[in-house]
Amino acid sequence: MDRPVILVSNDDGYRARGVHELTRLLSEYGDVVAICPEGPQSGKSMAITVSEPLRITPVDDYKDTEPGVEWYHVNGTPTDCIKLAMHTVMRDRRPAMVCTGINHGSNASVNVLYSGTMGAAFEGCACGIPSVGFSLCDHSHAADFSAMRPYIRHVVELTLRYGLPEGICLNINAPKGPELAGMRLTTACRGHWSDEYTARTDPHGRSIFWLTGSFINEEPDNPDTDAALLARGFVTVVPTLLDRSVPSPLQPDWLPQLDLTF
Amino acid sequence: MDRPVILVSNDDGYRARGVHELTRLLSEYGDVVAICPEGPQSGKSMAITVSEPLRITPVDDYKDTEPGVEWYHVNGTPTDCIKLAMHTVMRDRRPAMVCTGINHGSNASVNVLYSGTMGAAFEGCACGIPSVGFSLCDHSHAADFSAMRPYIRHVVELTLRYGLPEGICLNINAPKGPELAGMRLTTACRGHWSDEYTARTDPHGRSIFWLTGSFINEEPDNPDTDAALLARGFVTVVPTLLDRSVPSPLQPDWLPQLDLTF
Repeated sequence: MDRPVILVSNDDGYRARGVHELTRLLSEYGDVVAICPEGPQSGKSMAITVSEPLRITPVDDYKDTEPGVEWYHVNGTPTDCIKLAMHTVMRDRRPAMVCTGINHGSNASVNVLYSGTMGAAFEGCACGIPSVGFSLCDHSHAADFSAMRPYIRHVVELTLRYGLPEGICLNINAPKGPELAGMRLTTACRGHWSDEYTARTDPHGRSIFWLTGSFINEEPDNPDTDAALLARGFVTVVPTLLDRSVPSPLQPDWLPQLDLTF
Repeated sequence: MDRPVILVSNDDGYRARGVHELTRLLSEYGDVVAICPEGPQSGKSMAITVSEPLRITPVDDYKDTEPGVEWYHVNGTPTDCIKLAMHTVMRDRRPAMVCTGINHGSNASVNVLYSGTMGAAFEGCACGIPSVGFSLCDHSHAADFSAMRPYIRHVVELTLRYGLPEGICLNINAPKGPELAGMRLTTACRGHWSDEYTARTDPHGRSIFWLTGSFINEEPDNPDTDAALLARGFVTVVPTLLDRSVPSPLQPDWLPQLDLTF
Protein backbone atom coordinates (compact mmCIF):
# COMPACT_ATOMS: atom_id res chain seq x y z
CA MET A 1 0.00 0.00 0.00
CA ASP A 2 1.21 3.52 -0.79
CA ARG A 3 2.30 5.53 2.17
CA PRO A 4 0.14 8.60 2.72
CA VAL A 5 1.65 12.00 1.98
CA ILE A 6 1.60 14.42 4.88
CA LEU A 7 2.08 18.15 4.31
CA VAL A 8 3.70 20.08 7.15
CA SER A 9 4.03 23.80 7.83
CA ASN A 10 4.48 26.10 10.80
CA ASP A 11 4.82 29.77 11.70
CA ASP A 12 8.15 29.77 13.52
CA GLY A 13 10.07 29.22 10.28
CA TYR A 14 11.74 26.15 8.82
CA ARG A 15 14.64 26.21 11.28
CA ALA A 16 12.47 26.01 14.42
CA ARG A 17 12.93 22.98 16.63
CA GLY A 18 9.19 22.26 16.88
CA VAL A 19 8.61 21.59 13.20
CA HIS A 20 11.53 19.17 13.04
CA GLU A 21 10.13 17.32 16.03
CA LEU A 22 6.91 17.03 14.01
CA THR A 23 8.48 15.97 10.69
CA ARG A 24 10.58 13.27 12.36
CA LEU A 25 7.55 11.87 14.15
CA LEU A 26 5.31 12.01 11.05
CA SER A 27 7.93 10.14 8.97
CA GLU A 28 6.76 7.02 10.80
CA TYR A 29 3.34 7.41 9.19
CA GLY A 30 3.95 8.64 5.68
CA ASP A 31 5.99 10.60 3.19
CA VAL A 32 6.50 14.03 4.67
CA VAL A 33 6.72 17.26 2.68
CA ALA A 34 7.55 20.28 4.85
CA ILE A 35 6.93 23.74 3.40
CA CYS A 36 7.59 26.43 5.96
CA PRO A 37 8.20 30.16 6.07
CA GLU A 38 11.79 31.32 5.59
CA GLY A 39 11.71 33.03 8.97
CA PRO A 40 9.42 33.70 11.92
CA GLN A 41 5.80 34.40 10.96
CA SER A 42 4.13 34.26 14.34
CA GLY A 43 0.84 36.12 14.68
CA LYS A 44 0.11 36.05 10.95
CA SER A 45 -3.36 34.51 11.33
CA MET A 46 -4.61 33.57 7.83
CA ALA A 47 -2.75 36.44 6.17
CA ILE A 48 -1.88 35.95 2.51
CA THR A 49 0.60 37.80 0.33
CA VAL A 50 -1.43 39.59 -2.31
CA SER A 51 0.90 41.93 -4.15
CA GLU A 52 4.42 40.55 -3.85
CA PRO A 53 5.77 37.53 -5.73
CA LEU A 54 6.38 34.33 -3.77
CA ARG A 55 9.26 31.90 -4.14
CA ILE A 56 9.40 28.29 -3.02
CA THR A 57 12.94 27.04 -2.44
CA PRO A 58 14.17 23.49 -1.78
CA VAL A 59 16.16 23.13 1.44
CA ASP A 60 19.02 20.60 1.59
CA ASP A 61 20.07 21.14 5.21
CA TYR A 62 18.19 18.16 6.64
CA LYS A 63 19.05 15.45 4.11
CA ASP A 64 21.18 13.55 6.60
CA THR A 65 19.19 14.11 9.77
CA GLU A 66 15.75 13.59 8.20
CA PRO A 67 16.21 11.27 5.22
CA GLY A 68 13.05 11.05 3.16
CA VAL A 69 11.59 14.35 4.32
CA GLU A 70 11.28 16.90 1.51
CA TRP A 71 12.04 20.40 2.78
CA TYR A 72 11.16 23.78 1.22
CA HIS A 73 10.89 27.32 2.45
CA VAL A 74 8.64 30.10 1.18
CA ASN A 75 9.09 33.88 1.49
CA GLY A 76 5.57 34.34 2.81
CA THR A 77 3.08 33.55 5.52
CA PRO A 78 2.06 30.11 6.83
CA THR A 79 -1.14 30.30 4.77
CA ASP A 80 0.93 31.21 1.68
CA CYS A 81 2.99 28.06 2.33
CA ILE A 82 -0.06 25.80 2.15
CA LYS A 83 -1.56 27.61 -0.86
CA LEU A 84 1.66 27.62 -2.83
CA ALA A 85 2.43 24.01 -1.86
CA MET A 86 -0.94 22.89 -3.22
CA HIS A 87 -0.26 24.78 -6.44
CA THR A 88 3.30 23.49 -6.94
CA VAL A 89 4.99 20.52 -5.28
CA MET A 90 1.73 18.93 -4.02
CA ARG A 91 -0.14 19.49 -7.26
CA ASP A 92 -0.08 15.85 -8.31
CA ARG A 93 -0.03 14.20 -4.91
CA ARG A 94 -2.85 15.27 -2.67
CA PRO A 95 -1.88 15.17 1.02
CA ALA A 96 -3.79 12.77 3.24
CA MET A 97 -3.31 15.24 6.06
CA VAL A 98 -1.95 18.70 6.85
CA CYS A 99 -0.09 19.01 10.16
CA THR A 100 1.18 22.36 11.43
CA GLY A 101 3.50 23.25 14.27
CA ILE A 102 4.68 22.19 16.67
CA ASN A 103 4.27 25.80 17.67
CA HIS A 104 6.57 27.22 20.31
CA GLY A 105 3.83 28.75 22.47
CA SER A 106 0.15 28.33 23.27
CA ASN A 107 -2.55 28.65 20.64
CA ALA A 108 -5.34 28.03 23.14
CA SER A 109 -8.26 30.38 23.79
CA VAL A 110 -8.17 33.61 21.73
CA ASN A 111 -4.62 32.89 20.52
CA VAL A 112 -6.17 30.73 17.81
CA LEU A 113 -7.43 33.93 16.14
CA TYR A 114 -3.96 35.33 15.57
CA SER A 115 -1.96 32.13 15.18
CA GLY A 116 -0.06 31.54 11.96
CA THR A 117 0.22 27.86 12.87
CA MET A 118 -3.56 27.62 12.98
CA GLY A 119 -3.77 29.86 9.89
CA ALA A 120 -1.94 27.14 7.96
CA ALA A 121 -4.21 24.46 9.45
CA PHE A 122 -7.29 26.48 8.45
CA GLU A 123 -5.94 26.74 4.92
CA GLY A 124 -5.45 22.97 4.80
CA CYS A 125 -9.05 22.66 5.97
CA ALA A 126 -10.15 25.11 3.25
CA CYS A 127 -8.49 22.77 0.74
CA GLY A 128 -10.65 19.93 2.05
CA ILE A 129 -7.75 18.11 3.73
CA PRO A 130 -7.95 16.83 7.33
CA SER A 131 -5.81 19.39 9.15
CA VAL A 132 -4.42 19.61 12.65
CA GLY A 133 -2.35 22.30 14.36
CA PHE A 134 -0.09 21.34 17.27
CA SER A 135 1.26 23.73 19.89
CA LEU A 136 3.27 23.42 23.07
CA CYS A 137 2.77 26.01 25.82
CA ASP A 138 6.46 26.90 25.91
CA HIS A 139 7.92 29.81 23.93
CA SER A 140 11.52 28.71 24.44
CA HIS A 141 13.56 27.99 21.31
CA ALA A 142 14.92 24.95 23.13
CA ALA A 143 11.47 23.70 24.24
CA ASP A 144 11.21 19.98 25.03
CA PHE A 145 8.42 18.44 22.95
CA SER A 146 8.91 14.84 24.05
CA ALA A 147 5.97 14.55 26.48
CA MET A 148 3.62 15.52 23.66
CA ARG A 149 4.72 12.73 21.31
CA PRO A 150 2.26 9.97 22.24
CA TYR A 151 -0.62 12.44 21.96
CA ILE A 152 0.49 13.60 18.53
CA ARG A 153 0.83 9.98 17.42
CA HIS A 154 -2.67 9.16 18.66
CA VAL A 155 -4.26 12.12 16.85
CA VAL A 156 -2.34 11.46 13.64
CA GLU A 157 -3.23 7.75 13.62
CA LEU A 158 -6.93 8.48 14.15
CA THR A 159 -7.03 11.31 11.64
CA LEU A 160 -5.27 9.27 8.93
CA ARG A 161 -7.71 6.43 9.64
CA TYR A 162 -11.02 8.30 9.99
CA GLY A 163 -10.44 11.77 8.55
CA LEU A 164 -12.18 14.80 10.01
CA PRO A 165 -15.63 16.27 9.38
CA GLU A 166 -15.66 18.72 6.47
CA GLY A 167 -14.90 22.28 7.48
CA ILE A 168 -13.48 21.34 10.89
CA CYS A 169 -9.83 21.24 11.84
CA LEU A 170 -8.25 20.50 15.20
CA ASN A 171 -6.38 22.91 17.45
CA ILE A 172 -4.24 20.84 19.82
CA ASN A 173 -2.29 22.34 22.69
CA ALA A 174 -0.09 20.64 25.26
CA PRO A 175 1.14 21.93 28.61
CA LYS A 176 4.85 22.20 29.12
CA GLY A 177 5.20 18.82 30.82
CA PRO A 178 7.14 16.72 31.65
CA GLU A 179 4.06 15.02 33.18
CA LEU A 180 0.82 15.21 31.19
CA ALA A 181 -2.54 14.19 32.62
CA GLY A 182 -4.22 12.94 29.44
CA MET A 183 -6.10 14.45 26.52
CA ARG A 184 -9.50 16.16 26.50
CA LEU A 185 -11.94 17.34 23.85
CA THR A 186 -12.99 20.89 24.71
CA THR A 187 -13.74 24.42 23.46
CA ALA A 188 -11.72 27.64 23.39
CA CYS A 189 -11.79 29.60 26.65
CA ARG A 190 -13.37 33.03 26.43
CA GLY A 191 -10.75 35.61 27.27
CA HIS A 192 -8.75 38.55 26.06
CA TRP A 193 -5.35 40.18 26.39
CA SER A 194 -5.02 43.27 28.57
CA ASP A 195 -2.43 46.04 28.67
CA GLU A 196 -1.30 44.86 25.32
CA TYR A 197 1.48 47.35 24.64
CA THR A 198 4.59 48.57 26.37
CA ALA A 199 5.47 52.12 25.36
CA ARG A 200 9.07 53.18 24.77
CA THR A 201 10.68 56.23 23.23
CA ASP A 202 12.85 55.77 20.17
CA PRO A 203 16.20 57.60 19.80
CA HIS A 204 14.37 60.39 17.93
CA GLY A 205 11.95 61.04 20.79
CA ARG A 206 8.94 59.35 19.20
CA SER A 207 6.69 56.91 21.04
CA ILE A 208 6.87 53.30 19.97
CA PHE A 209 4.70 50.45 21.16
CA TRP A 210 5.66 46.80 21.59
CA LEU A 211 3.05 44.08 21.87
CA THR A 212 3.08 42.53 25.35
CA GLY A 213 0.12 42.05 27.71
CA SER A 214 -1.30 39.31 29.83
CA PHE A 215 -4.14 36.87 29.24
CA ILE A 216 -7.40 37.45 31.11
CA ASN A 217 -9.55 34.33 31.45
CA GLU A 218 -13.19 35.46 31.21
CA GLU A 219 -14.57 32.19 32.54
CA PRO A 220 -12.20 31.37 35.40
CA ASP A 221 -14.79 29.19 37.17
CA ASN A 222 -15.31 26.90 34.18
CA PRO A 223 -13.07 23.85 34.67
CA ASP A 224 -13.64 22.56 31.14
CA THR A 225 -12.18 25.29 28.91
CA ASP A 226 -8.95 24.65 27.08
CA ALA A 227 -7.17 27.17 29.32
CA ALA A 228 -8.39 25.42 32.49
CA LEU A 229 -7.57 21.93 31.21
CA LEU A 230 -4.08 22.99 30.13
CA ALA A 231 -3.51 24.43 33.60
CA ARG A 232 -4.45 21.02 35.00
CA GLY A 233 -1.94 19.24 32.78
CA PHE A 234 -4.20 18.00 29.99
CA VAL A 235 -3.52 18.09 26.28
CA THR A 236 -6.52 19.89 24.75
CA VAL A 237 -8.26 19.14 21.45
CA VAL A 238 -10.48 21.95 20.18
CA PRO A 239 -12.47 21.16 17.03
CA THR A 240 -12.47 24.45 15.17
CA LEU A 241 -14.73 25.66 12.37
CA LEU A 242 -13.38 27.20 9.21
CA ASP A 243 -16.68 28.91 8.36
CA ARG A 244 -17.58 31.51 10.94
CA SER A 245 -20.98 32.47 9.65
CA VAL A 246 -23.76 31.99 12.15
CA PRO A 247 -25.98 29.09 11.04
CA SER A 248 -29.09 30.61 9.51
CA PRO A 249 -31.59 28.82 11.78
CA LEU A 250 -30.02 30.68 14.67
CA GLN A 251 -30.07 34.08 13.03
CA PRO A 252 -33.63 35.23 13.69
CA ASP A 253 -33.18 34.69 17.44
CA TRP A 254 -29.85 36.37 17.57
CA LEU A 255 -30.59 39.41 15.47
CA PRO A 256 -34.29 40.14 15.87
CA GLN A 257 -33.67 43.85 15.85
CA LEU A 258 -32.07 44.00 12.44
CA ASP A 259 -35.10 44.57 10.28
CA LEU A 260 -33.59 44.37 6.85
CA THR A 261 -36.74 44.96 4.87
CA PHE A 262 -36.69 48.74 5.10
CA MET B 1 -26.69 63.88 25.02
CA ASP B 2 -23.10 63.00 24.20
CA ARG B 3 -22.50 61.91 20.66
CA PRO B 4 -21.27 58.32 20.43
CA VAL B 5 -17.66 57.75 19.46
CA ILE B 6 -17.17 55.56 16.39
CA LEU B 7 -13.80 53.94 15.69
CA VAL B 8 -12.98 53.36 12.03
CA SER B 9 -10.29 51.31 10.32
CA ASN B 10 -9.70 49.57 7.00
CA ASP B 11 -7.13 47.50 5.15
CA ASP B 12 -6.63 49.61 2.03
CA GLY B 13 -4.72 52.27 3.99
CA TYR B 14 -5.73 55.71 5.24
CA ARG B 15 -5.65 57.29 1.77
CA ALA B 16 -8.19 54.91 0.21
CA ARG B 17 -11.41 56.40 -1.07
CA GLY B 18 -13.62 53.82 0.68
CA VAL B 19 -12.66 54.74 4.22
CA HIS B 20 -13.25 58.44 3.59
CA GLU B 21 -16.69 57.62 2.23
CA LEU B 22 -17.28 55.81 5.53
CA THR B 23 -15.88 58.51 7.84
CA ARG B 24 -17.90 61.25 6.13
CA LEU B 25 -21.09 59.22 6.46
CA LEU B 26 -20.44 58.23 10.08
CA SER B 27 -19.83 61.86 11.05
CA GLU B 28 -23.59 62.27 10.89
CA TYR B 29 -23.95 59.81 13.78
CA GLY B 30 -21.07 60.51 16.11
CA ASP B 31 -17.51 61.61 16.74
CA VAL B 32 -15.36 59.65 14.35
CA VAL B 33 -11.80 58.51 15.08
CA ALA B 34 -10.15 56.85 12.07
CA ILE B 35 -7.02 54.76 12.69
CA CYS B 36 -5.88 53.06 9.51
CA PRO B 37 -2.77 51.38 8.17
CA GLU B 38 -0.15 53.64 6.59
CA GLY B 39 -0.47 51.71 3.32
CA PRO B 40 -2.29 48.78 1.75
CA GLN B 41 -2.77 45.81 4.09
CA SER B 42 -5.19 43.71 2.08
CA GLY B 43 -5.26 40.01 2.86
CA LYS B 44 -3.84 40.43 6.36
CA SER B 45 -6.65 38.54 8.08
CA MET B 46 -6.24 39.00 11.87
CA ALA B 47 -2.46 39.24 11.63
CA ILE B 48 -0.75 41.16 14.43
CA THR B 49 2.74 42.59 14.60
CA VAL B 50 4.56 40.69 17.33
CA SER B 51 8.21 41.63 17.15
CA GLU B 52 8.46 45.08 15.59
CA PRO B 53 7.55 48.35 17.30
CA LEU B 54 4.38 50.15 16.22
CA ARG B 55 3.86 53.88 15.79
CA ILE B 56 0.58 55.77 15.73
CA THR B 57 0.81 59.08 13.90
CA PRO B 58 -1.76 61.89 13.68
CA VAL B 59 -2.75 62.80 10.12
CA ASP B 60 -3.60 66.43 9.29
CA ASP B 61 -4.47 66.00 5.63
CA TYR B 62 -8.25 65.88 6.09
CA LYS B 63 -8.79 68.76 8.52
CA ASP B 64 -10.57 70.84 5.91
CA THR B 65 -12.46 68.16 4.03
CA GLU B 66 -13.53 66.19 7.11
CA PRO B 67 -13.73 68.65 10.00
CA GLY B 68 -14.24 66.86 13.29
CA VAL B 69 -12.84 63.52 12.16
CA GLU B 70 -9.65 62.57 14.00
CA TRP B 71 -7.22 60.82 11.67
CA TYR B 72 -4.21 58.61 12.50
CA HIS B 73 -2.15 56.05 10.67
CA VAL B 74 -0.32 53.04 12.09
CA ASN B 75 2.66 51.14 10.61
CA GLY B 76 0.94 47.80 11.06
CA THR B 77 -2.00 45.61 10.17
CA PRO B 78 -5.72 46.43 10.46
CA THR B 79 -5.90 44.38 13.67
CA ASP B 80 -2.88 46.26 15.04
CA CYS B 81 -4.78 49.51 14.33
CA ILE B 82 -7.71 48.47 16.54
CA LYS B 83 -5.51 47.05 19.29
CA LEU B 84 -3.23 50.08 19.41
CA ALA B 85 -6.17 52.47 19.17
CA MET B 86 -7.80 50.87 22.21
CA HIS B 87 -4.52 51.16 24.10
CA THR B 88 -3.82 54.78 23.17
CA VAL B 89 -6.21 57.36 21.73
CA MET B 90 -9.38 55.42 22.65
CA ARG B 91 -8.18 54.48 26.11
CA ASP B 92 -10.50 56.90 27.91
CA ARG B 93 -13.38 56.98 25.45
CA ARG B 94 -14.75 53.59 24.64
CA PRO B 95 -16.19 53.44 21.10
CA ALA B 96 -19.89 52.73 20.77
CA MET B 97 -19.12 50.96 17.52
CA VAL B 98 -16.24 49.84 15.31
CA CYS B 99 -16.81 50.25 11.57
CA THR B 100 -14.28 48.98 9.03
CA GLY B 101 -13.96 49.53 5.29
CA ILE B 102 -15.45 50.43 3.01
CA ASN B 103 -13.28 47.79 1.43
CA HIS B 104 -12.49 48.08 -2.26
CA GLY B 105 -13.45 44.50 -3.19
CA SER B 106 -15.68 41.67 -1.99
CA ASN B 107 -15.30 40.07 1.42
CA ALA B 108 -18.11 37.61 0.79
CA SER B 109 -17.79 33.82 1.01
CA VAL B 110 -14.28 32.60 1.86
CA ASN B 111 -12.81 36.07 1.39
CA VAL B 112 -13.83 36.81 4.96
CA LEU B 113 -11.08 34.44 6.13
CA TYR B 114 -8.28 36.50 4.59
CA SER B 115 -9.76 39.97 4.81
CA GLY B 116 -7.91 42.61 6.77
CA THR B 117 -11.08 44.71 6.84
CA MET B 118 -12.89 41.89 8.60
CA GLY B 119 -9.77 41.23 10.72
CA ALA B 120 -10.20 44.72 12.18
CA ALA B 121 -13.93 44.10 12.69
CA PHE B 122 -13.17 40.82 14.47
CA GLU B 123 -10.72 42.64 16.73
CA GLY B 124 -13.41 45.21 17.57
CA CYS B 125 -15.68 42.29 18.40
CA ALA B 126 -12.94 40.73 20.55
CA CYS B 127 -12.88 44.02 22.50
CA GLY B 128 -16.60 43.61 23.15
CA ILE B 129 -17.62 46.49 20.86
CA PRO B 130 -20.41 46.12 18.26
CA SER B 131 -18.41 45.84 15.04
CA VAL B 132 -19.31 45.87 11.38
CA GLY B 133 -17.17 45.48 8.26
CA PHE B 134 -18.36 47.05 4.99
CA SER B 135 -17.19 46.05 1.52
CA LEU B 136 -18.11 46.96 -2.04
CA CYS B 137 -17.61 44.38 -4.79
CA ASP B 138 -15.43 46.71 -6.84
CA HIS B 139 -11.63 46.71 -6.62
CA SER B 140 -11.25 50.00 -8.46
CA HIS B 141 -9.49 52.82 -6.62
CA ALA B 142 -12.17 55.13 -8.00
CA ALA B 143 -15.07 52.87 -6.99
CA ASP B 144 -18.45 54.58 -6.56
CA PHE B 145 -19.81 53.84 -3.08
CA SER B 146 -22.92 55.99 -3.29
CA ALA B 147 -25.52 53.24 -3.87
CA MET B 148 -24.39 51.59 -0.63
CA ARG B 149 -24.98 54.67 1.53
CA PRO B 150 -28.59 54.09 2.65
CA TYR B 151 -27.72 50.51 3.62
CA ILE B 152 -24.74 51.60 5.67
CA ARG B 153 -26.88 54.21 7.37
CA HIS B 154 -29.55 51.66 8.20
CA VAL B 155 -27.06 49.20 9.72
CA VAL B 156 -25.25 51.91 11.69
CA GLU B 157 -28.49 53.34 13.07
CA LEU B 158 -29.70 49.91 14.20
CA THR B 159 -26.35 48.87 15.63
CA LEU B 160 -25.93 52.10 17.59
CA ARG B 161 -29.46 51.66 18.91
CA TYR B 162 -29.57 47.93 19.68
CA GLY B 163 -25.95 46.76 19.72
CA LEU B 164 -25.01 43.30 18.53
CA PRO B 165 -24.98 39.95 20.32
CA GLU B 166 -21.71 39.26 22.15
CA GLY B 167 -19.11 37.55 20.00
CA ILE B 168 -20.86 38.29 16.72
CA CYS B 169 -19.89 40.95 14.20
CA LEU B 170 -21.41 41.73 10.82
CA ASN B 171 -19.83 41.21 7.42
CA ILE B 172 -21.67 43.45 4.96
CA ASN B 173 -21.07 43.35 1.21
CA ALA B 174 -22.69 45.35 -1.55
CA PRO B 175 -22.78 44.70 -5.30
CA LYS B 176 -21.29 47.31 -7.55
CA GLY B 177 -24.56 49.04 -8.27
CA PRO B 178 -25.79 51.53 -9.35
CA GLU B 179 -29.12 49.73 -8.73
CA LEU B 180 -29.36 47.63 -5.56
CA ALA B 181 -32.23 45.21 -4.89
CA GLY B 182 -32.37 45.47 -1.09
CA MET B 183 -30.59 43.89 1.86
CA ARG B 184 -30.66 40.27 3.04
CA LEU B 185 -29.50 38.38 6.13
CA THR B 186 -27.57 35.32 4.96
CA THR B 187 -24.54 33.04 5.46
CA ALA B 188 -21.17 32.79 3.71
CA CYS B 189 -21.22 30.77 0.50
CA ARG B 190 -19.11 27.63 0.53
CA GLY B 191 -16.42 27.97 -2.10
CA HIS B 192 -12.74 28.17 -2.80
CA TRP B 193 -10.23 29.80 -5.11
CA SER B 194 -8.73 27.74 -7.92
CA ASP B 195 -5.54 28.15 -9.93
CA GLU B 196 -4.39 30.55 -7.35
CA TYR B 197 -0.99 31.47 -8.75
CA THR B 198 0.42 32.75 -11.99
CA ALA B 199 4.02 31.66 -12.50
CA ARG B 200 6.61 34.02 -13.98
CA THR B 201 10.37 33.92 -14.24
CA ASP B 202 12.37 36.68 -12.57
CA PRO B 203 15.37 38.33 -14.33
CA HIS B 204 17.66 35.77 -12.61
CA GLY B 205 15.80 32.79 -14.03
CA ARG B 206 14.00 31.82 -10.84
CA SER B 207 10.30 31.00 -10.68
CA ILE B 208 8.08 33.49 -8.92
CA PHE B 209 4.39 33.11 -8.17
CA TRP B 210 1.75 35.83 -8.02
CA LEU B 211 -1.57 35.28 -6.32
CA THR B 212 -4.42 35.28 -8.83
CA GLY B 213 -7.13 32.66 -9.30
CA SER B 214 -10.87 32.57 -9.67
CA PHE B 215 -13.64 31.90 -7.20
CA ILE B 216 -15.43 28.56 -7.39
CA ASN B 217 -18.90 28.56 -5.83
CA GLU B 218 -19.41 25.14 -4.20
CA GLU B 219 -23.16 25.59 -3.82
CA PRO B 220 -24.18 27.17 -7.13
CA ASP B 221 -27.78 25.94 -6.81
CA ASN B 222 -28.34 27.61 -3.46
CA PRO B 223 -30.02 30.98 -4.14
CA ASP B 224 -29.60 32.16 -0.56
CA THR B 225 -25.82 32.34 -0.10
CA ASP B 226 -24.10 35.69 0.09
CA ALA B 227 -22.48 35.06 -3.31
CA ALA B 228 -25.85 34.28 -4.93
CA LEU B 229 -27.61 37.24 -3.34
CA LEU B 230 -24.83 39.63 -4.35
CA ALA B 231 -25.13 38.35 -7.93
CA ARG B 232 -28.84 39.20 -7.75
CA GLY B 233 -28.13 42.75 -6.63
CA PHE B 234 -28.71 42.43 -2.87
CA VAL B 235 -26.59 43.88 -0.11
CA THR B 236 -25.70 40.91 2.13
CA VAL B 237 -25.45 40.86 5.92
CA VAL B 238 -23.57 37.86 7.32
CA PRO B 239 -23.50 37.60 11.12
CA THR B 240 -20.06 36.20 11.81
CA LEU B 241 -18.73 34.49 14.92
CA LEU B 242 -15.47 35.47 16.53
CA ASP B 243 -15.09 32.15 18.35
CA ARG B 244 -14.65 29.30 15.95
CA SER B 245 -14.70 26.43 18.40
CA VAL B 246 -17.42 23.90 17.74
CA PRO B 247 -20.06 24.15 20.48
CA SER B 248 -19.45 21.27 22.86
CA PRO B 249 -22.95 19.73 22.61
CA LEU B 250 -22.20 19.14 18.94
CA GLN B 251 -18.81 17.58 19.46
CA PRO B 252 -19.73 13.99 20.33
CA ASP B 253 -21.73 13.68 17.11
CA TRP B 254 -19.08 15.22 14.98
CA LEU B 255 -16.03 13.47 16.28
CA PRO B 256 -17.20 10.08 17.56
CA GLN B 257 -14.10 8.42 16.27
CA LEU B 258 -11.66 10.47 18.28
CA ASP B 259 -11.45 8.38 21.41
CA LEU B 260 -9.32 10.56 23.59
CA THR B 261 -9.25 8.30 26.62
CA PHE B 262 -6.43 6.13 25.41
